[in-house]
Amino acid sequence: MPTKIRYANTGEPLDVLYLENYDMPEPEKDEALVQMIAAAVNPVDINIVQGKYPLKVDSPGYEGMGKVIKVGSEVKNLKVGDHVIPIVYAGTWRTHITLPEESLFRIPKSIDVPEGATLQVNPVTMYTMLKEFVNLGPEDTVIQNGANSACGVIAIQMCKAWGIKTVNVVRDRPLIDDLKTFLKSLGATYVFTEEEIKKTDIFKTGELNNPVLGLNCIGGSSATSIMRHLSEEGVLVTYGGMSLEPVTASTTALVFKNIRLEGFNMSRWNNKEENFAKLPKILNEIVDMVLEEKLKAPPHALVDFLNYKEALRNTLSPGGMIGKKFILDFRNLSSKI
Amino acid sequence: MPTKIRYANTGEPLDVLYLENYDMPEPEKDEALVQMIAAAVNPVDINIVQGKYPLKVDSPGYEGMGKVIKVGSEVKNLKVGDHVIPIVYAGTWRTHITLPEESLFRIPKSIDVPEGATLQVNPVTMYTMLKEFVNLGPEDTVIQNGANSACGVIAIQMCKAWGIKTVNVVRDRPLIDDLKTFLKSLGATYVFTEEEIKKTDIFKTGELNNPVLGLNCIGGSSATSIMRHLSEEGVLVTYGGMSLEPVTASTTALVFKNIRLEGFNMSRWNNKEENFAKLPKILNEIVDMVLEEKLKAPPHALVDFLNYKEALRNTLSPGGMIGKKFILDFRNLSSKI
Repeated sequence: MPTKIRYANTGEPLDVLYLENYDMPEPEKDEALVQMIAAAVNPVDINIVQGKYPLKVDSPGYEGMGKVIKVGSEVKNLKVGDHVIPIVYAGTWRTHITLPEESLFRIPKSIDVPEGATLQVNPVTMYTMLKEFVNLGPEDTVIQNGANSACGVIAIQMCKAWGIKTVNVVRDRPLIDDLKTFLKSLGATYVFTEEEIKKTDIFKTGELNNPVLGLNCIGGSSATSIMRHLSEEGVLVTYGGMSLEPVTASTTALVFKNIRLEGFNMSRWNNKEENFAKLPKILNEIVDMVLEEKLKAPPHALVDFLNYKEALRNTLSPGGMIGKKFILDFRNLSSKI
Repeated sequence: MPTKIRYANTGEPLDVLYLENYDMPEPEKDEALVQMIAAAVNPVDINIVQGKYPLKVDSPGYEGMGKVIKVGSEVKNLKVGDHVIPIVYAGTWRTHITLPEESLFRIPKSIDVPEGATLQVNPVTMYTMLKEFVNLGPEDTVIQNGANSACGVIAIQMCKAWGIKTVNVVRDRPLIDDLKTFLKSLGATYVFTEEEIKKTDIFKTGELNNPVLGLNCIGGSSATSIMRHLSEEGVLVTYGGMSLEPVTASTTALVFKNIRLEGFNMSRWNNKEENFAKLPKILNEIVDMVLEEKLKAPPHALVDFLNYKEALRNTLSPGGMIGKKFILDFRNLSSKI
């Protein structure tokens, strides 16, 4: 029987989320019925359930991939068996969803589950941040903190694919050298710890041009040290604030270096019609990068849908927020529900 | 004999500035010789002499007005007797200047000395800040701190002329009611003290739309309280930092309200060819506003050029930086030099 994860009141996910059965939905004329294959557990999902995010939904799940198992009489471009991802908020932590066909984006069947289930939120966010604020060319450098986050490793790979250099900042930790090696294997030009980035002279020596774009998901002093390296008229785009500290800009940086501070939030961006219209083109480019093996899913673990609490627990831990992404896997489920 | 104010080394203006005579300059073919009538003493001039501003010059004076007294053989659009203002940095604290005619902008002779001598730096700055960052319409509100500064009173008048509402923040002080009355007489929609702006409910009640543009010349908590009132996707433009405290933006403001932080510096803006090309059109509009009595000079005092130390002393005092503008007056000088 169709099963979903839902909540009656916002709160801590492990407390408020529960499983519920529902009737098999029937697609309207212009809709497709999708059986979910896999759905990512993103920090944004946690924040929505906690009520910390200004988006109210009935059931969680921002993204995922599924298979079309039934189509309405007027559906033109989708057929049974197609693999699709929803491009609107759909509540993907459920086995079966009906959606209008224009809210579904078909992906090639050769896209693997980890990539397909995580194709939208992080890749579209990073693609957009890298494209919308600055016109990046091959001489340009991008600097980012939280470089080992799911978003960070995507930025590294996209910049590598586009021939843009990246300076990547991570917190010091045990096995830091392994992390550096991993990020470099993805294409990172430089990887520094928060301490190292303060002291580096790679920009002074001219080894690298000062970054024209900074991506900040931390805030506080981490954002400040990124900002300090930005070129004149550089842009710092904030998309998260893991340190819970604000971003601080000196008057000198603003007035004499003309540093610009922007924020980015994908839901807000998608809500604008002209942006939403770009989404298929962006997703096609992302799919191509995946097919060309230029973009891999971030470090992840697949967890049976019914074990969703394990995925939540791990996503809620500090390590989870910036480390491994958990993906709910619906494939072993048919027999159990 | 031609006389100028100059300095050999940067330092405190009262210590390092001195008068020096020089030979009467002879205009080249494409140049005009200008006898200065009046020149403003702006905070930027002080900062240049102090070496705090990233612009190195031989002698100070960012703006002023003068009269053409001789033209080179190839000068086409200027004639002896024309009133002009330099539109490049010219070192205006001197009696005689030669400049290429394209670096001079002719103003009507009916423009009074206080307006003519202060036409460029503050009005062009405020015009540009009000026009370049946000497309303001009649339903829009602009919020600014330091509203009684020379720049602030220009923003009030320009917005009034364009039908845009302004919310103006000033520090509490003796005779605050007189200041409020004065700013309202210029067209200010609302005037609040720093304390009052934190508590006002004019935006909550819908009496005014949340400002789409904030102009900040203070920084610190004053900037924060302006930012708090901005509409979604509002822009805070910083053009000064009188509190010497940085501007701080919460991640929420950046990511969920999409507040943008920009900086503005007129020299940097003018240095871009495409911007410099707009200058004559902007100055024409400003001149029209002056002629229509929609734009008056900020509160000011004329001081004889030879008494420049009095002007400096007053500009250097905290009151001077945000209050009265001092203007060096060259008109009584011909007999003395």
